Amino acid sequence: MGRKKQKLKIIPLGGLAEIGKNMTVVEYGNDIVIVDCGLTFPSEEMLGIDIVIPDITYLEKNKDKIKGLVITHGHEDHIGAVPYILKKLDIKVYATKLTLGLIKNKFSEHKLSTENLREVQAGSRIKLGKFDIEFIRASHSIPDSCSIAIKSPVGTVLFTGDFKIDYTPIDGCLMDLPRLAALGDEGVLCLLSDSTNVEREGYTMSERRVGETFKDVFSTATARIIVATFASNLHRVQQVISASEYFGRKVAVSGRSMVNTISVALELGYLKVKKGTMIDINRIDDYEPNQITILTTGSQGEPMSALARMASGEHRKVKLTPLDLVVISASPIPGNEKTVFNVLNKLTEIGCQIVYQALAEVHVSGHACKEELKLIHTLVRPKYFIPVHGEIRHLKLHAKLAMDLGLSPENILIGKNGTVFEMDDESIEIAGEVEAGDVLVDGLGVGDVGSVVLRDRKHLAEDGLIVVVITISKQERNVVAGPDIISRGFVYVKESLDLMEECRRVVEKTLENSNDEKLYDWATLKYNIRDDLKTFLFKEIKRNPMILPIIMEV
Amino acid sequence: MGRKKQKLKIIPLGGLAEIGKNMTVVEYGNDIVIVDCGLTFPSEEMLGIDIVIPDITYLEKNKDKIKGLVITHGHEDHIGAVPYILKKLDIKVYATKLTLGLIKNKFSEHKLSTENLREVQAGSRIKLGKFDIEFIRASHSIPDSCSIAIKSPVGTVLFTGDFKIDYTPIDGCLMDLPRLAALGDEGVLCLLSDSTNVEREGYTMSERRVGETFKDVFSTATARIIVATFASNLHRVQQVISASEYFGRKVAVSGRSMVNTISVALELGYLKVKKGTMIDINRIDDYEPNQITILTTGSQGEPMSALARMASGEHRKVKLTPLDLVVISASPIPGNEKTVFNVLNKLTEIGCQIVYQALAEVHVSGHACKEELKLIHTLVRPKYFIPVHGEIRHLKLHAKLAMDLGLSPENILIGKNGTVFEMDDESIEIAGEVEAGDVLVDGLGVGDVGSVVLRDRKHLAEDGLIVVVITISKQERNVVAGPDIISRGFVYVKESLDLMEECRRVVEKTLENSNDEKLYDWATLKYNIRDDLKTFLFKEIKRNPMILPIIMEV
Repeated sequence: MGRKKQKLKIIPLGGLAEIGKNMTVVEYGNDIVIVDCGLTFPSEEMLGIDIVIPDITYLEKNKDKIKGLVITHGHEDHIGAVPYILKKLDIKVYATKLTLGLIKNKFSEHKLSTENLREVQAGSRIKLGKFDIEFIRASHSIPDSCSIAIKSPVGTVLFTGDFKIDYTPIDGCLMDLPRLAALGDEGVLCLLSDSTNVEREGYTMSERRVGETFKDVFSTATARIIVATFASNLHRVQQVISASEYFGRKVAVSGRSMVNTISVALELGYLKVKKGTMIDINRIDDYEPNQITILTTGSQGEPMSALARMASGEHRKVKLTPLDLVVISASPIPGNEKTVFNVLNKLTEIGCQIVYQALAEVHVSGHACKEELKLIHTLVRPKYFIPVHGEIRHLKLHAKLAMDLGLSPENILIGKNGTVFEMDDESIEIAGEVEAGDVLVDGLGVGDVGSVVLRDRKHLAEDGLIVVVITISKQERNVVAGPDIISRGFVYVKESLDLMEECRRVVEKTLENSNDEKLYDWATLKYNIRDDLKTFLFKEIKRNPMILPIIMEV
Repeated sequence: MGRKKQKLKIIPLGGLAEIGKNMTVVEYGNDIVIVDCGLTFPSEEMLGIDIVIPDITYLEKNKDKIKGLVITHGHEDHIGAVPYILKKLDIKVYATKLTLGLIKNKFSEHKLSTENLREVQAGSRIKLGKFDIEFIRASHSIPDSCSIAIKSPVGTVLFTGDFKIDYTPIDGCLMDLPRLAALGDEGVLCLLSDSTNVEREGYTMSERRVGETFKDVFSTATARIIVATFASNLHRVQQVISASEYFGRKVAVSGRSMVNTISVALELGYLKVKKGTMIDINRIDDYEPNQITILTTGSQGEPMSALARMASGEHRKVKLTPLDLVVISASPIPGNEKTVFNVLNKLTEIGCQIVYQALAEVHVSGHACKEELKLIHTLVRPKYFIPVHGEIRHLKLHAKLAMDLGLSPENILIGKNGTVFEMDDESIEIAGEVEAGDVLVDGLGVGDVGSVVLRDRKHLAEDGLIVVVITISKQERNVVAGPDIISRGFVYVKESLDLMEECRRVVEKTLENSNDEKLYDWATLKYNIRDDLKTFLFKEIKRNPMILPIIMEV
């Protein structure tokens, strides 16, 4: 019994049955390695929330076991929570050069020391506790992306990370498919693979396809060209720069994240730019319009982004004219369609030429479609499979894909954040659940907004608020001031004076009906005020504002 | 000079440079005819709003001129505002049988008399003032749709209404293309044509394509089939019923709008159903699961819809099982992607088989793509063209399409709601603007919620509320109770007692710094409280709640 091996645990704390905030724990005995540490953006009902990060209660309870955090690539849903987690856990972070550069950027914003950050190369290995960890080059919509293989005493676990298979990548860095095949030969215990595009048939087009469209589109431009894309998509940025150089244009940059990312990329050598191509946004008027390209944020129509400000005429440096050509080199992330359409409409009003995905191939996805996913399964031939990076319907479709390729259903498990997957070379099973969930960040507050606060915000958002204030005399046991009725977000008060006056009368009646005794039972009094007013308002106007009775005592 | 003809005016009050709430005024001398009277659904920032209808100030000012309201078809964006407008204007409404049936349904909900409603046939004409009005059969995603030609002393104006060209329509009612061609021969002064799908190349597929998919999909089902689609798409409903009959299934209906629409359609003869096919939803358990189809609302993932309730296990009549097959026969309207995905994920969790647009051809659009639009232009050969039913980018693309077909740019005008297009046989121009815009309906209130109320709702939604109450003695000129601090939607109060206490101290300090004089200048005092607290909170926690200082006097 003494030599019986322990089981290997894989515990996703984020990114399972959701898209975003990826974070997975790999645990063997007294060793833990964490893979990725991302954020997600709030859903519509998370009113006022800035970002969402994973709940790391499990890691805080097991902090002595943690040997390190390894990162696949530099997208927000893989690195965005690093500063928040590092404030709570003193751990080393391992990532490739560009990824680390982007993390450092965040650390300086958060005023955190970078002493825990460690650079690794794609193709290299590190040892963390009992784990041998290998970074394997992957292709994705940001350079320096990796798959990560974690060799444990029980077997090897392979995280694909986010990927697509691009045989002609812009930076020439091919996904290391031979190494994945070799790992398959050596034997992979468990594969965790990206499921984002599993609903799509076929292959994702090469990033180069967009470059061809850029050449076509740029050749028609007679004045300035403005290209909006994801700041982190440096392949795309490279293609905009290359196309601009080809047509003799200078490139200026607008938008905080675009400026930041490009400056990190230039500094670290991730962009090939001829001397003199990049110019300061303040210098664009020193050139003819047909000598200028502007790279900008705002491809999702974000209301405060540089492109949205240009479209509204509120950008301080760039005033668009009908001669300018605007290219939105992105597709709307589900939920962002309307903001993107708003920007397109404003650009149309200005009269700009506009090119967007509905009209031309100015974007390709960064994620693998079905046939690419099949290739990875076929090369890696894992014993077990856990589909990741997807909502539940993606995970199930990906499981089905693996079954179609011959993997037996009991070797495929679908879980959610917090699920404990336990495995050895004989079996895999779900062995429990740990604390996991969303931690909401609002301003400087981390985790101090929860369901009650959000419910109140939603209530206030729907129908506004009525405050009822009365002052009661302790000695005389009567109302000495009020009821005063104040409303916000409810009705135009000036046009609804009668209604407000009726509200006051309703409350007065409630007070009259409360004998002296009840005037001192504030809970009951407040309840009655709320109830009477609510009934009145629903009958009168079919609205249900939050009613806040306040009693002062003098 | 006496015999000089007056000019014809076309004034859109809704539906121009937006998708939704279509309503257009056609005016000649002392005669006005209104075409359509629709609603639109609130945009994301219209917190708490139920629906949006057109501003009809212009019509109220010119009510004596109005000869009637003519309707193209029975979709909400063409009939949804009829009850609201009829409460303000005593006018006759002309529409085909099904359209009228759907309007009557609304009138009974609004407890309105139906005496002003008049039935017309596709292919027939009516005379309203100096206008000769012809209803011309069109094909669209609801039966009994029409284009409307309005012959005025100056010339004929043709409204296509919403349409697609379906050569094999489910109900056999072909779009009357020969009549459009004949109108072209007679001469059309101005065309107003649907622009919804002008971004799409080629042709929209025939509705029959979906029927073929239904047959394929239904043939694989071993238990119940649940199909969610738009209630108003009676062609789709017909195909679900036909496919069910083919496979020996009974059809039950769930969801208020689906029940209403189907009952109107059955009553008026717009559905071909074998005797005994339709059963009450309460009787579904009397049959084997493979003998049942359920037609339901909720194809947009609407949280309170029948399908959403089934997916959450909250539907009282239908408990889904992993054997059930759910078909979402619709595509998400932009902005609804996330709610649709939510429902798909919940259905996946239950383990249902699901079929949706990403996986099979279970939906086709009801609107014409580019080649169909070109056909209409080519048949009608109008002198002037006003693109309608589209956001500004659609209108411009449609204008470009018309130019590509040879229409001269000065004969094409793009406007917005309120634009007055004025024309005769010599020229068309924009001759001014009338009042037009959004009227917001919230509960029973029509137009009593405006920008100030919405701004407050947004503020409350983002960061919640802090109420500061103090009671001041008139005689003693001092604070006799408070400051009390109450918050909602701001922070978890229990976990932020320190913060709330600090807020109290900030206000106390503000009060201390206010001398007696200021204590009586309430405006200044309130301003100072708000300002000091706001500064403190932003520094402390980077949030900006609404701060509501209330002063009581005793």
